Amino acid sequence: MQHSPLIQQLIDAFRRLPGVGGKTAQRMVLHFLERDRDGGRKLAAALTAAMDGVGQCRLCHTLAEAELCLVCAHPGRDIHTICVVETPADVYAIEQTASYRGLYFVLMGHLSPIDGIGPDQLGIAGLIERVRNNPVNEVILATNPTVEGEATAWYVAEQLKSEDLIQRGLRISRIAHGVPMGGELEYIDGSTLMHSLSGRLLINNPGRSQ
Amino acid sequence: MQHSPLIQQLIDAFRRLPGVGGKTAQRMVLHFLERDRDGGRKLAAALTAAMDGVGQCRLCHTLAEAELCLVCAHPGRDIHTICVVETPADVYAIEQTASYRGLYFVLMGHLSPIDGIGPDQLGIAGLIERVRNNPVNEVILATNPTVEGEATAWYVAEQLKSEDLIQRGLRISRIAHGVPMGGELEYIDGSTLMHSLSGRLLINNPGRSQ
Repeated sequence: MQHSPLIQQLIDAFRRLPGVGGKTAQRMVLHFLERDRDGGRKLAAALTAAMDGVGQCRLCHTLAEAELCLVCAHPGRDIHTICVVETPADVYAIEQTASYRGLYFVLMGHLSPIDGIGPDQLGIAGLIERVRNNPVNEVILATNPTVEGEATAWYVAEQLKSEDLIQRGLRISRIAHGVPMGGELEYIDGSTLMHSLSGRLLINNPGRSQ
Repeated sequence: MQHSPLIQQLIDAFRRLPGVGGKTAQRMVLHFLERDRDGGRKLAAALTAAMDGVGQCRLCHTLAEAELCLVCAHPGRDIHTICVVETPADVYAIEQTASYRGLYFVLMGHLSPIDGIGPDQLGIAGLIERVRNNPVNEVILATNPTVEGEATAWYVAEQLKSEDLIQRGLRISRIAHGVPMGGELEYIDGSTLMHSLSGRLLINNPGRSQ
């Protein structure tokens, strides 16, 4: 079936979204055309406003409309800790836990030489400068537990191990790998189980659980 | 986590889509902001163009940009048959089979008194007029095999059983209910199996199979 040009064009535009195929795109288009034209217009306006108005935070590089993102601009955050993540979605995920009060640095990707993404593209030199010029006590490396994420974390850690930062007592940490809460050991992959065992915490020694 | 206003507004706009929750909406927004701003702008433009430019076909009531939809405007279609469906998506589904060459009438819903949708809202009087004033030989009722769809088909059939149309030899048919192709009898529900048995076709009598 040939859709009429405007409808086909809109279906094609929706298909650029991740995980949206032809059928889903058609359902979205028909939803707006049949039942929610106002919603369609609102989405168009919100898209235009966001595409033009959202840039990157000067400090942590996450998506932000102002010069600083909401986290960096918040006066109550702990400026002594920086958490390094790959994407803004990781920031949202950590913020959702409401258990972290420090600042962030968003790499906007991971080292991937084959795609031409090196330390310069991720702004790692800027991160090192920021750590050097601010009273940062700890850098938490929270890149993904994938090959690229691990390599990126390793690279950032190596760059942070400069003489002046070590003398200052800077702590460099990596998020724990292990068995996810609610999971069953039986179904956990071997690599995760291995990390879970080697990274075990003594429960009769409160000193180590920090 | 509080998203910045423009991002939150865009997430909310995407959440109006069927089957899109908070997580999916966030993923869509981040996709456009991080990787495809051009795609985001294109989607906004396509949305605006479609919301303002797509209306309904004068003849069959499906979504169309011109006065007539592509099917009604096509000179090669069989004007003696009208297939009555609930939504434009049903038209697309039937067109995809490439086995139907007649015209359509799209009800844009089904009878649902509880929602205030009666024969007037579906334009059924207009359908009867169209059948009466054109050389239509057959009306195929292809509403959904749901309670509302069946009731709607029954109502349309009753309206078509007027004296002049019966004298003209108008055929009124309902799409076949039965076992879907590729399905396994074991997993088909009883109601479908019952229809499949009562609607069985003789295979040694070609005359009955259309």
